[in-house]
Amino acid sequence: RGIRVGYTPDVLTDATAELSVALLLATCRRLPEAMEQVKSGGWTTWKPLWMCGYGLSDSTVGIIGLGRIGQAVARRLKPFGVKKFLYTGSGPKPETAAEFQAEFVPLTRLAEESDFVVVTCALTPATSGMCNKDFFSRMKKTSVFVNTSRGAVVNQEDLYDALAHGQIAAAGLDVTTPEPLPTNHPLLSLPNCVILPHVGSATYATRSTMAVLAANNLLAGLRGEPMPHELLL
Amino acid sequence: RGIRVGYTPDVLTDATAELSVALLLATCRRLPEAMEQVKSGGWTTWKPLWMCGYGLSDSTVGIIGLGRIGQAVARRLKPFGVKKFLYTGSGPKPETAAEFQAEFVPLTRLAEESDFVVVTCALTPATSGMCNKDFFSRMKKTSVFVNTSRGAVVNQEDLYDALAHGQIAAAGLDVTTPEPLPTNHPLLSLPNCVILPHVGSATYATRSTMAVLAANNLLAGLRGEPMPHELLL
Repeated sequence: RGIRVGYTPDVLTDATAELSVALLLATCRRLPEAMEQVKSGGWTTWKPLWMCGYGLSDSTVGIIGLGRIGQAVARRLKPFGVKKFLYTGSGPKPETAAEFQAEFVPLTRLAEESDFVVVTCALTPATSGMCNKDFFSRMKKTSVFVNTSRGAVVNQEDLYDALAHGQIAAAGLDVTTPEPLPTNHPLLSLPNCVILPHVGSATYATRSTMAVLAANNLLAGLRGEPMPHELLL
Repeated sequence: RGIRVGYTPDVLTDATAELSVALLLATCRRLPEAMEQVKSGGWTTWKPLWMCGYGLSDSTVGIIGLGRIGQAVARRLKPFGVKKFLYTGSGPKPETAAEFQAEFVPLTRLAEESDFVVVTCALTPATSGMCNKDFFSRMKKTSVFVNTSRGAVVNQEDLYDALAHGQIAAAGLDVTTPEPLPTNHPLLSLPNCVILPHVGSATYATRSTMAVLAANNLLAGLRGEPMPHELLL
């Protein structure tokens, strides 16, 4: 009570959408495994299916939470030849869904039909643990799962089982439970799981913009003036 | 003489453009370093500039060789907020350059003004060793270099020096000289150099299409018929 709180909304949409696509591509095209093969000497003569991955051409992409970041992800993925966008979520249906011809579907159908699932929803009681054993069991064996929202949207034990048993092809996570993830966590032992240390907004330009907004909030607060971006509860 | 040769043109444009964008994003957003920090325990509390990279928003992208693959790369990068595309090359100016408002410039100006340089040209006597000491010295210290064409377009000693001395920010290579690259090559010791084992066309769908084309060429050859795609010299 009496403590005013500023925040920095909207400024990380582009950086986070960019990181989501970076993580999706690194995961589906198996970049970490491929880099490791260069270093270990596993790169030898050409072989037809060596280090092959799944491309976006003619694929179906399912986006869980088609808000600001989800829409920015779809806009970036579209020119890769995505055939169909599906989405689900509890928010208002975004007007831009038409831009991507995105179809609203239940979560179960999104899991069953998507070649790539990208999670960009908020963490709420409704989304906590939403990507669980049932969800992964509906996904295709050739599908790729990417989460750049919050770690707790995913049941990590169920994700581990799905990855370890080939129920899904691969996963890319920029967020985990907890953060930082313990270095001995089982997910880190899987070749088909790419884990980043929550770097969605980590570009020099975005962090600089965030710092300026935060400083302006602080200065306004110290002067007793309205903050440019104040959290009002 | 008398030996007929089939080939598989055009089928790898999408997969290679996709891999080029994947490599560019992995390099500029420092994914390999970030993944390593997760495994090593370097991921601790939030720090303002930790693992920050350079994003594509408001950037200038220079494409060396705006042919089929170069154009497919530009089409995919545009929705990331690229402000300006530059290109250079000896081929005919592509009609689609207008689609990206891409400006034709000399190689020197492309090096000086681009935040991201992507090489997608053919290897010819004119392009061999083209990215050399002079080229890298014109690039900005914050710029990122990506090569998915042929290794010999780059003078690797000059690239090593530019990366080791901070003359450019980072490089991503899907092609090297020689291939495979020896595992003790100096480029592999640099944290700001991402090297892939020539996986541009490595998707299951593309390799399957290539195999079918190759088989049809072979069958036509055995029957003494015109091949679907025959190399005529």
